[in-house]
Amino acid sequence: MTVMNHRFTLAARPVGLPKATDFKFGEEPVPEPADGELLVKLEYISLDPAMRGWMNDTKSYIPPIGIGELMRAIAIGKVVASKHPGFAVGESVAGLFGVQEYAVTDGKGVMKVPPVAPLPVFLSALGMPGLTAYFGLLDIGKPQPGETVVVSGAAGAVGSIVGQIAKLKGCRVVGIAGGADKCKYLVDELGFDAAIDYKATDVTAALREHCPKGIDVYFDNVGGEILDAALARLALHARVVICGAISQYNNLVVKGPSNYLSLLVNRATMTGMVVTDYTPRFTAAIMEMAGWMGAGKLRSREDIVRGIETFPTTLLKLFSGENHGKLLLAV
Amino acid sequence: MTVMNHRFTLAARPVGLPKATDFKFGEEPVPEPADGELLVKLEYISLDPAMRGWMNDTKSYIPPIGIGELMRAIAIGKVVASKHPGFAVGESVAGLFGVQEYAVTDGKGVMKVPPVAPLPVFLSALGMPGLTAYFGLLDIGKPQPGETVVVSGAAGAVGSIVGQIAKLKGCRVVGIAGGADKCKYLVDELGFDAAIDYKATDVTAALREHCPKGIDVYFDNVGGEILDAALARLALHARVVICGAISQYNNLVVKGPSNYLSLLVNRATMTGMVVTDYTPRFTAAIMEMAGWMGAGKLRSREDIVRGIETFPTTLLKLFSGENHGKLLLAV
Repeated sequence: MTVMNHRFTLAARPVGLPKATDFKFGEEPVPEPADGELLVKLEYISLDPAMRGWMNDTKSYIPPIGIGELMRAIAIGKVVASKHPGFAVGESVAGLFGVQEYAVTDGKGVMKVPPVAPLPVFLSALGMPGLTAYFGLLDIGKPQPGETVVVSGAAGAVGSIVGQIAKLKGCRVVGIAGGADKCKYLVDELGFDAAIDYKATDVTAALREHCPKGIDVYFDNVGGEILDAALARLALHARVVICGAISQYNNLVVKGPSNYLSLLVNRATMTGMVVTDYTPRFTAAIMEMAGWMGAGKLRSREDIVRGIETFPTTLLKLFSGENHGKLLLAV
Repeated sequence: MTVMNHRFTLAARPVGLPKATDFKFGEEPVPEPADGELLVKLEYISLDPAMRGWMNDTKSYIPPIGIGELMRAIAIGKVVASKHPGFAVGESVAGLFGVQEYAVTDGKGVMKVPPVAPLPVFLSALGMPGLTAYFGLLDIGKPQPGETVVVSGAAGAVGSIVGQIAKLKGCRVVGIAGGADKCKYLVDELGFDAAIDYKATDVTAALREHCPKGIDVYFDNVGGEILDAALARLALHARVVICGAISQYNNLVVKGPSNYLSLLVNRATMTGMVVTDYTPRFTAAIMEMAGWMGAGKLRSREDIVRGIETFPTTLLKLFSGENHGKLLLAV
């Protein structure tokens, strides 16, 4: 019996929100690894806002996914066959394996996952989202004790780690998220000083209330109106970290921040970041964060949906904000 | 005979472009300086884009001008009476003297003007515009030899100095200005490598042509569509200096830069600046720039309009782009 590999390819470039017809679910025989290659059986696939950008045919930090090509995704799995001297059958590995059940790889860019935490955590707090939070906040935001840090998408995979690290650094932390449940989680379970429910509250007024001395570091995952509200409340010499803009990824015309001249008034800085620039420092960062997790100071939360075939609809949870924690597919 | 002081006060907050009725031209007897004060007879009054912002009732880096208050302006003049030990009759001084013929001051924030250049130059290349260019470009833009520097409002008081200093630092310099005359001036007389006439050319396409390796430093004086065009052409690790946004100052709703996510794609930074933060370094900067002027490497150009009574209409030249060089009123 031939074992089949089920996989999603990109069938069409989405206009606005991705539709089921923008993807094609197909199958092919599981490939044999050639010399120097290994075969990975995927266990968890990471669903990330960045995937939406990869589907557009525009210049970005990596090339777009071609029509007919495998849908790009970070995933984690076990080596089930290996003709590569560096990887043994049974090891857990993470890499850009795509939305499929089996991946063949030459091992480039593939990381071994140490057995110090459950696998899903390596796609969450100890994976790209956690690393994005770590380097974006610490290297670009440069929070100082006593400063006020505001993060949007605060209950998400990146935002929840940003807020927790900012608390570890002695900052006042205010999260912006959608819904009372998420806000309660941020304050009661993650120790945020305050949370603003953007679906129920005027964000501008709430930022005035919760940031009486202004915002020193604003970590933005969402763009749009919320970015503008934060810009209006910057403190002198504030640092704005541009990590993402999930509210804008499905728009044909991005809403630029009308309040950008607040950068001038406040001598503030807005800086973009891409986590892969920090690759040489990944291991050290993961070790530091794993230490925080072991000491109970950093929590990771995953929202795991079963079944690779649910990919097109599960992905949409990111844009509706339905996910609670890092969104993963269990294969 | 009582000598009268003619002066402009703010009569109403402008909506859009300032109108003549937004100002009141009045007169009052020239005041006598009290002990510790001096009386200055103004010779040149600086007209600056920043004045538009000062007329709005919004939080900024200095308080707004109150209704009925003297219209704020930087000016230069001669001391004609002094009861201040630090200033003697006959000395030339610069300060925030306002749009009037005579100013009484306690000397705070008043600078003596050394007799090394014509007076108008101290409101231009060796005044606030030159200092804004100097610190904005060198401290925030940090241009390196061989990099590409683009400046908007390039024929203006700030932009023309930015471009010339960037050339001195060994950069490729592209200016954006309105009209063939200004563009010819930038290339033929100031030594810019290229100039883009935004009134006659597609700026996006022209930037692609003239910045084949992307833009390393973008110094923005205008905002709006031109800022978006420049953002679309950033090089990796580009620095965007936000100095002003003259295209937006008369708009009720500022157009935010839709292409701000180029900061993310290119790991770039956008930073606002206000020249008064650099006061302790003004003298050293003026001396360095005076040296460049003496060596023929830096040129200052002023557009001088006679008659204080022309203030409301002369000010509008800034927004139509009619001025050619630093706009001044000769009193």
